Amino acid sequence: MSMEIIQKQRAAMREQNLDALVIASPENIAYTADVVVPSQAIVRHRLVFCLVPCEGAPQIITVNIEESFVSSNSSIEQVVAYNEFTEDPVRVLADCLHAAGLGSGRIGIEYTALSIKSYETLRTALPQAALIPIDDLLQRLRLIKTPGELQKLRQIGKAAERAARAAFEQARAGMTEVELGQLITEAYLANGGDRLTMLVVGAGERSGFANAAPTRRPLRHGDIVRVDVIGTGGNYYSDVARTAVIGRATDEQLRAWSHLVEARKVALAALRPGASTRAMYQRYAEQMERWNLPPIKFLGHGLGLTLHEEPYIGPYTDIQLRPGMVMCIEPLCWYPEHWGVQLEDEVILTGDGYELITDQYDESELYVIPA
Amino acid sequence: MSMEIIQKQRAAMREQNLDALVIASPENIAYTADVVVPSQAIVRHRLVFCLVPCEGAPQIITVNIEESFVSSNSSIEQVVAYNEFTEDPVRVLADCLHAAGLGSGRIGIEYTALSIKSYETLRTALPQAALIPIDDLLQRLRLIKTPGELQKLRQIGKAAERAARAAFEQARAGMTEVELGQLITEAYLANGGDRLTMLVVGAGERSGFANAAPTRRPLRHGDIVRVDVIGTGGNYYSDVARTAVIGRATDEQLRAWSHLVEARKVALAALRPGASTRAMYQRYAEQMERWNLPPIKFLGHGLGLTLHEEPYIGPYTDIQLRPGMVMCIEPLCWYPEHWGVQLEDEVILTGDGYELITDQYDESELYVIPA
Repeated sequence: MSMEIIQKQRAAMREQNLDALVIASPENIAYTADVVVPSQAIVRHRLVFCLVPCEGAPQIITVNIEESFVSSNSSIEQVVAYNEFTEDPVRVLADCLHAAGLGSGRIGIEYTALSIKSYETLRTALPQAALIPIDDLLQRLRLIKTPGELQKLRQIGKAAERAARAAFEQARAGMTEVELGQLITEAYLANGGDRLTMLVVGAGERSGFANAAPTRRPLRHGDIVRVDVIGTGGNYYSDVARTAVIGRATDEQLRAWSHLVEARKVALAALRPGASTRAMYQRYAEQMERWNLPPIKFLGHGLGLTLHEEPYIGPYTDIQLRPGMVMCIEPLCWYPEHWGVQLEDEVILTGDGYELITDQYDESELYVIPA
Repeated sequence: MSMEIIQKQRAAMREQNLDALVIASPENIAYTADVVVPSQAIVRHRLVFCLVPCEGAPQIITVNIEESFVSSNSSIEQVVAYNEFTEDPVRVLADCLHAAGLGSGRIGIEYTALSIKSYETLRTALPQAALIPIDDLLQRLRLIKTPGELQKLRQIGKAAERAARAAFEQARAGMTEVELGQLITEAYLANGGDRLTMLVVGAGERSGFANAAPTRRPLRHGDIVRVDVIGTGGNYYSDVARTAVIGRATDEQLRAWSHLVEARKVALAALRPGASTRAMYQRYAEQMERWNLPPIKFLGHGLGLTLHEEPYIGPYTDIQLRPGMVMCIEPLCWYPEHWGVQLEDEVILTGDGYELITDQYDESELYVIPA
């Protein structure tokens, strides 16, 4: 898969007259080298770089303690390892650039991912180079997924949907949010997920928080239970939200739910190449206003190696949908510290409409967990 | 707890003649505001800042979608929320600095955490301010833990130790690494853990990888199984590694294990205020060489809001131990792609020696899982 990606990157480099890309963010390293270096996210000084020259072999630079893992798992064959105590990874990167004859080249760097410290080191080590921001370019490349990416997203999205349903089927009043989270985790892993990066389980008043990790709060009669299965499989994200009630929902909650189901139907029907994300959002915002439901920020967002990426379906940008985009559609209604309901699905844009990834269960009725 | 921390920060500010700290890294935000904003780690543009003026109320700046969570969970009362689509969080931060009369102040910033893009925005918005790196200062403040921090570290360290043992007790040949990981996760959560951020489960040849996440590889007769329970509770890390064998270890493996037990004993006996980390490492390196075991990078490291922090027990720095430091001691022996054994414990430095956090089981024999 990754040769396909590197070819896309090289085409973009030629268009922008760049001699090399220096990739630093975890998601773009995963895109380029098909690997997430385990400790990068939690040990901040263990910087990882991919160096992709327009011509010549790409390299991945990593801390030596991860070298064997990266050699076995990365699709980039040339692994350069540094000692985190005696070497500055940015100097190692600069040496690689010099060795590749790129010391005075036009080098693309991630302005939002490279720290000031790294930037100053690189600037000093490469006084002749032009350092050019490529954040937007990299985001743009990731908008349209390759067939290999679609396959991974399909698999992990369906796993997330099954995990939420399996947990609801086993849930009972008296169980805690953490225990419900464990049921989701078991089913997610059993269905091909690698890990839940931000599992949301909110019961009762906690269903009204945006991203509430499970706590020891027990599920009680009358609670709304909102779960959002946010995790990764093969480095790609799932983001599927489902809602249930313990026992009986109030009329107000049932009314909100039926409106979300209606909003979902309208949104899905609008998905086709050329559709405007702003128009989709406006229709949704008008519906929510008519129904007197609380205003929300966006109806959907792109999904891939990150949880949120373009295209957003919101009021601030307008993007024309294109085949190969993968998106979450997530009508929701939150009353912070009271309750919240949400219905989030994943779709792939196709040549004439969309493919619903999360298509395994009927979501027209609010799921009822026995009290 | 956090008032205690902010007082420490203010004392440091006065020493260094700083008017305010701008905190940007997740670990230092957790230190300052006792909160980890859920989506900060996985949605990179949702920047979070704590603004701690030398005088006046501290503020925390966060994306509006996390506002209710932060208001409920942060120990900093003044929450400033921004719209991620229409506002630049760094401009919001600059406005807060101006409003606090700090526009031409001496402002401490994290050089390793702030991106070039953020830095340039801040630089432009605050042309009169002096922006001064505080990365080392913040690390130094975190070296000695407060009583509240020690309590959290004790609790989560013991939970990790129990989780590893509970999983070994239920493990059987034929089970997969993922299933073993689930047993660890269940016990970790049941004992007070919040989440496993980098759970390591490596069987057979995978026990020789540094940070191997569990896969669907089954546990087989003769496998070494190495687990490292890396996760957080109340934002503080646990890092406890244990090793077992399925059935029978080879003589070579048993020999390596008994040397690790010996190295652990010698290392623990050396822990006291004033001890030199370099001397501890040198003794360890000599032992490993005498035993003809593979050379390793360090014998231990500090632990707290991050997994690895000073003081390292390695060859490159030399720190005198002091009461209130919390450390991992981790003798290990890896033959990459063959097998690896490791025994990692957590300790608190006290006035006259150390307190072993992970003291619940005898580790002198290699744990045997029935084949």
